[in-house]
Amino acid sequence: MRYELYYQPLIQGRGEFVRLALEDAGADYVDVARNPSVGRAGIMKILEDRSIKTPAFAPPFLKAGKLMIGQTANILQFLAPRLGLVPKDQASRIWAHQLQLTVTDWMAEVGAVHHPIANSLYYEEQKDESKKRASYFTSMRIPKFLGYYEAVMERNPKGSKYLLGKRLCYVDLSLFQMVEGLRYAFPKTMAKLEPNYPRVIALHDRVAVRPRLKKYLASPRRLAFNQNGIFRHYPELDE
Amino acid sequence: MRYELYYQPLIQGRGEFVRLALEDAGADYVDVARNPSVGRAGIMKILEDRSIKTPAFAPPFLKAGKLMIGQTANILQFLAPRLGLVPKDQASRIWAHQLQLTVTDWMAEVGAVHHPIANSLYYEEQKDESKKRASYFTSMRIPKFLGYYEAVMERNPKGSKYLLGKRLCYVDLSLFQMVEGLRYAFPKTMAKLEPNYPRVIALHDRVAVRPRLKKYLASPRRLAFNQNGIFRHYPELDE
Repeated sequence: MRYELYYQPLIQGRGEFVRLALEDAGADYVDVARNPSVGRAGIMKILEDRSIKTPAFAPPFLKAGKLMIGQTANILQFLAPRLGLVPKDQASRIWAHQLQLTVTDWMAEVGAVHHPIANSLYYEEQKDESKKRASYFTSMRIPKFLGYYEAVMERNPKGSKYLLGKRLCYVDLSLFQMVEGLRYAFPKTMAKLEPNYPRVIALHDRVAVRPRLKKYLASPRRLAFNQNGIFRHYPELDE
Repeated sequence: MRYELYYQPLIQGRGEFVRLALEDAGADYVDVARNPSVGRAGIMKILEDRSIKTPAFAPPFLKAGKLMIGQTANILQFLAPRLGLVPKDQASRIWAHQLQLTVTDWMAEVGAVHHPIANSLYYEEQKDESKKRASYFTSMRIPKFLGYYEAVMERNPKGSKYLLGKRLCYVDLSLFQMVEGLRYAFPKTMAKLEPNYPRVIALHDRVAVRPRLKKYLASPRRLAFNQNGIFRHYPELDE
């Protein structure tokens, strides 16, 4: 089946978690809004189309045959068994989804660093508040989340190479992406913190060299991090 | 099966979405931390217990036989088919979960109103920032979310009584709870807004009189909203 991913065409954002799963699995998919004749406007049009019975609150959403699925973690939960990116048993699937939902929470906090007051305002209009929020995020929240995933890997009964089981699953790809994004946004903080989370960093490195993913990351399909995305680098927030 | 719910014992919080599903279904469950000999400390002890292989990042979590499941929407997705609170077909289940995950996003924004800078600080230490955040939340975000669920009900091909299909599902209970909480926290704002979302409000009223739920809401098991919860009433944030 050819999957259709709908997400903003100029940023990695939440869509990137879905792209990584599709790319790692070598799935047949089209990143619809990257076509300039569709773009962001094309996505907004779909969101407002009253004939659609299951509208997403926001992108990303995925079309798979007749299904239209929104919410990043929901999309991944749907795709993962089809892409061979999660074990078959129910307990593993529930656990993987739980770990992915915690990534969702983490991402919301990443966005809140540069937009603590309102998404409708520019960063420059909430810079003072952002500085305070960033100090909390870098000193307390990044360690809390990294420490959580480190503990999960440490406790994995099948060994500490992956988050669950002994093979890669889709949540490993998302954790890779969190490390990538945090390194872009908070390089000083991450340089200090990384030595405390050796399993997470080893997982990141293991994911980066997976053949299909390595090719993807070097391709033009992988958008560069930039200052319109969710991960943003403002040096004043990384101190 | 007797389900064991683990959540903070003195607030409704995220645990309440799970309680509502269990109560509406008349399920056999125990709200573990309400036992004073367990309390909040008992939950924290479990979260730090290294022998647990699937630790939650934060409460609530649910024990169901051998499974220990975290993340509110994940718990509900697991429980709903067992409690008869979601249709059987895959498309409906994916759609219901998507709607529930949007409630998760909404709740995170509710908490951010009184804690825009850091959860580790008191409200009084971030009052100025809260005022700004509240103005954004009440003027733009509450209408956006209510408008979304109103549109979903309007588009429901099986009629506009419920969010999906023609019978109540677990997400209807969560939407009831959002209206309850917002009325407590932002009574002035809600009084102004509610007339614009007649389907959502009618759903709220329909849920409130369901026999088991009505009994629950009048019982001591239903904690009162209070200023330690996620929904908080600060008059200065409701203007």
